[in-house]
Amino acid sequence: MSAQIPTKFEQLFKKVDELKPQFIDVVAQAVAIPAVSSDETLRPQVVKKAHFLVQQLESLGFTDIQLKPLGLQPPPVSNPNLELPPVILSRYGNDPQKKTVLVYGHYDVQPAFKEDGWDSEPFELVVDEEKGLLKGRGATDDTGPLTGWLHVVRAHKEAGVEFPVNLITCFEGMEESGSLGLEELIAKEANGYFKDVDAVCISDNYWLGTKKPVLTYGLRGCNYYQVTIEGPQADLHSGVFGGIIAEPMIDLVKVMSTLVDSDGKILIKGVDEMVAPMTEKERKLYDNIDFSLDELNKASGSNTALYTKKEDILMHRWRYPSLSLHGVEGAFSGQGAKTVIPAKVIGKFSIRTVPDMDSAKLDELVIEHCEKAFAKLNSPNKCKAELIHDGAYWISDPHNAQFTAASKATRLVYGVEPDLTREGGSIPITVTFQDQLKTSVLLLPMGRGDDGAHSINEKLDISNFINGIKLMAAYLHYYAESKEI
Amino acid sequence: MSAQIPTKFEQLFKKVDELKPQFIDVVAQAVAIPAVSSDETLRPQVVKKAHFLVQQLESLGFTDIQLKPLGLQPPPVSNPNLELPPVILSRYGNDPQKKTVLVYGHYDVQPAFKEDGWDSEPFELVVDEEKGLLKGRGATDDTGPLTGWLHVVRAHKEAGVEFPVNLITCFEGMEESGSLGLEELIAKEANGYFKDVDAVCISDNYWLGTKKPVLTYGLRGCNYYQVTIEGPQADLHSGVFGGIIAEPMIDLVKVMSTLVDSDGKILIKGVDEMVAPMTEKERKLYDNIDFSLDELNKASGSNTALYTKKEDILMHRWRYPSLSLHGVEGAFSGQGAKTVIPAKVIGKFSIRTVPDMDSAKLDELVIEHCEKAFAKLNSPNKCKAELIHDGAYWISDPHNAQFTAASKATRLVYGVEPDLTREGGSIPITVTFQDQLKTSVLLLPMGRGDDGAHSINEKLDISNFINGIKLMAAYLHYYAESKEI
Repeated sequence: MSAQIPTKFEQLFKKVDELKPQFIDVVAQAVAIPAVSSDETLRPQVVKKAHFLVQQLESLGFTDIQLKPLGLQPPPVSNPNLELPPVILSRYGNDPQKKTVLVYGHYDVQPAFKEDGWDSEPFELVVDEEKGLLKGRGATDDTGPLTGWLHVVRAHKEAGVEFPVNLITCFEGMEESGSLGLEELIAKEANGYFKDVDAVCISDNYWLGTKKPVLTYGLRGCNYYQVTIEGPQADLHSGVFGGIIAEPMIDLVKVMSTLVDSDGKILIKGVDEMVAPMTEKERKLYDNIDFSLDELNKASGSNTALYTKKEDILMHRWRYPSLSLHGVEGAFSGQGAKTVIPAKVIGKFSIRTVPDMDSAKLDELVIEHCEKAFAKLNSPNKCKAELIHDGAYWISDPHNAQFTAASKATRLVYGVEPDLTREGGSIPITVTFQDQLKTSVLLLPMGRGDDGAHSINEKLDISNFINGIKLMAAYLHYYAESKEI
Repeated sequence: MSAQIPTKFEQLFKKVDELKPQFIDVVAQAVAIPAVSSDETLRPQVVKKAHFLVQQLESLGFTDIQLKPLGLQPPPVSNPNLELPPVILSRYGNDPQKKTVLVYGHYDVQPAFKEDGWDSEPFELVVDEEKGLLKGRGATDDTGPLTGWLHVVRAHKEAGVEFPVNLITCFEGMEESGSLGLEELIAKEANGYFKDVDAVCISDNYWLGTKKPVLTYGLRGCNYYQVTIEGPQADLHSGVFGGIIAEPMIDLVKVMSTLVDSDGKILIKGVDEMVAPMTEKERKLYDNIDFSLDELNKASGSNTALYTKKEDILMHRWRYPSLSLHGVEGAFSGQGAKTVIPAKVIGKFSIRTVPDMDSAKLDELVIEHCEKAFAKLNSPNKCKAELIHDGAYWISDPHNAQFTAASKATRLVYGVEPDLTREGGSIPITVTFQDQLKTSVLLLPMGRGDDGAHSINEKLDISNFINGIKLMAAYLHYYAESKEI
């Protein structure tokens, strides 16, 4: 920590350190509620966790607390009357002289069972002071970071430091199950609850590695396609029909084999041409990033990387498109031998999109490519290629007021310049906030790349938790001080 | 029916006609026992049906009746102490002056539930005199034909006609579930119970169509392969890893696309060269066969046939190899969108084999082909191609003593020359009998091509049932009279 630390931060950070046991206790109480959004039977627990958070907000002096209902969960669902978990909206401060920051987090979690291989009960937070870890489902994704904002408020109150901004919370309970209903709510509240929002901060991703703090300024999008090839009316026996019928699976494999090469090169004409050219300024962003092939190999548990150089790996994860083949619906997918000729097979693949790809144009190119590849086969079967889901890419100026404030905060708390990263995956809500609220969005991760967000033994390092709270606080102060919005 | 019908057949056939109600009653009693071999909970019913048949055999004067135990059912099985259903061995007649014919049938059936779409309870035989049908699970597969042999004996007894051969039964209760244990039993009894067997007759297949009786002299074999491509240690997220890791699914689709063309042409070098050349004699066998493209289209419910001419269709079903792609294990196979990069995918395909393909040589060619196709990809993933199951093809001389006798019997009963057919699928037990007993095997179907053996509303035409019994009887007499074995 810097020696020239201003007094208000000294007071605040001291308070954060003092309150560590209380902060951890809040996380422990929250983790103890198994708020698994994908498990319909646990929906009451998700709602219970929302009410727990409301109590916390109330006790901290948040106002205008609203549990926004999102209606019934759309099919497929076992219980057609299942309510979606509410979104928690609340305010802390309402000073027109101050900037307003919306903080997003989610209180639902991934499923977890001890039998999956956890060392401890997943819904009992383990505080391992020796290893410096908080272990439990939601510790890092996203209960720890979400409560971080509440701890920031508490530290200010108890340290007697004025809160620098108006804070608005948008905490959802359905993130792990597709954020159903949230997009509509944001659109609806854009000129309502959210009308004064100047900036959005999301703390729901991770450092690239385990040592260096990062700020995230870009996400790839995802256009997901399927090619359906249909022949006979029902599955046939390969003994009786093999050799005399055009097999949909043969056609499908041919079509899928024309999409991408084993070295990752996308074979659909016109796709690469849509990718924004690399600028010198952008290239420089990669120079200092702390990453290596070893980390990729460790993450994949193999030596099957397509690139060896750090820059190539990161650029192909972050700023170039990729095409993945996910699988086939309708074909035999079990163990052993089944002599079936599947009647209708559906190949699934997706393209991760990046600036400046045009989503609609991409769909056209993909569908045309599949149709042409199928036409070449002269097959009597029927083929249909279609988009089944898309989510836009997101890119921010990593040098705008929010990012500058967060960089300064990182230097203050961690004593290092943060790596400016992007992510290969998508967080669709990022784009929604940006588009609907017309504000800048900052992704400010608290946890590390090895936290195991969706895995067994999910953890959050205690140092990341405590420094993360300080980072959030400092970011709010620096952002409040910045001239621009 | 021919006018010059010999007296013994006149007596016999009259008796068969007279006994029709009794014969149907036996089928009805047998069908009423839900002997589903694939349903472990119904295993006692399978055994009950064996005992019912033993009672029938006893009452007809069969001797040396043995319920041969086959031991415990091997895994996968829920109950590790589940006994396989017994094989019913028995004799009718033991005259060293007579030829000995082994008749094979199976008393187990496919699963059936009214909810599947049956018009009636599947395990209650419906005798529809108007449509001339027996409807119920097992009517045609294989309870009707199996009991046919018992009815042949009864007709002889009641008509006072001397039985022309020594008959041995080999009735199993596990055919619909892989004939577990039967191969070993046949091998064991080859020089035991079966040591005097001169010929084997199996009535467990069907006419090609609905009008013309057939004798079946060939079956294709099946070599089933899998190609496993392995990369990362666990499934990965396509957002995080797409574009920087070599995807096993991309490699697999490339390898699978090199195996066969959309027009059915096998692309593995050396396979076609192993196929026995067509002789003029063989080609002529196809001339009169009653079949058309329409029948194929009706069966597949589509217009996706690879050939239009009858001869081409039948030759490619019967005497040419085919390669079918069955599916992929380990990839995403569900509905909707899942952004997974599968870590390990297993492509499944099989080749239907024909004379004179060498099974071991074929395995070599296939494995080498896959390895070469994968090597071309320069992928860092691992690839393994292997055989996981094989069953030999079978071909008989359609003009030998048994077939000649059966042809003569067909002319006598149906007044037409039977079509000499092969089948595209395999009946592994055919090869086992031929190899172990060193005898000729005849496939003498009773039912029609549209009986719906494994479907809903399985039926056997009453005319096929009654004429089938006469056919079995006449075949035994003509075979008994033939000079050669």
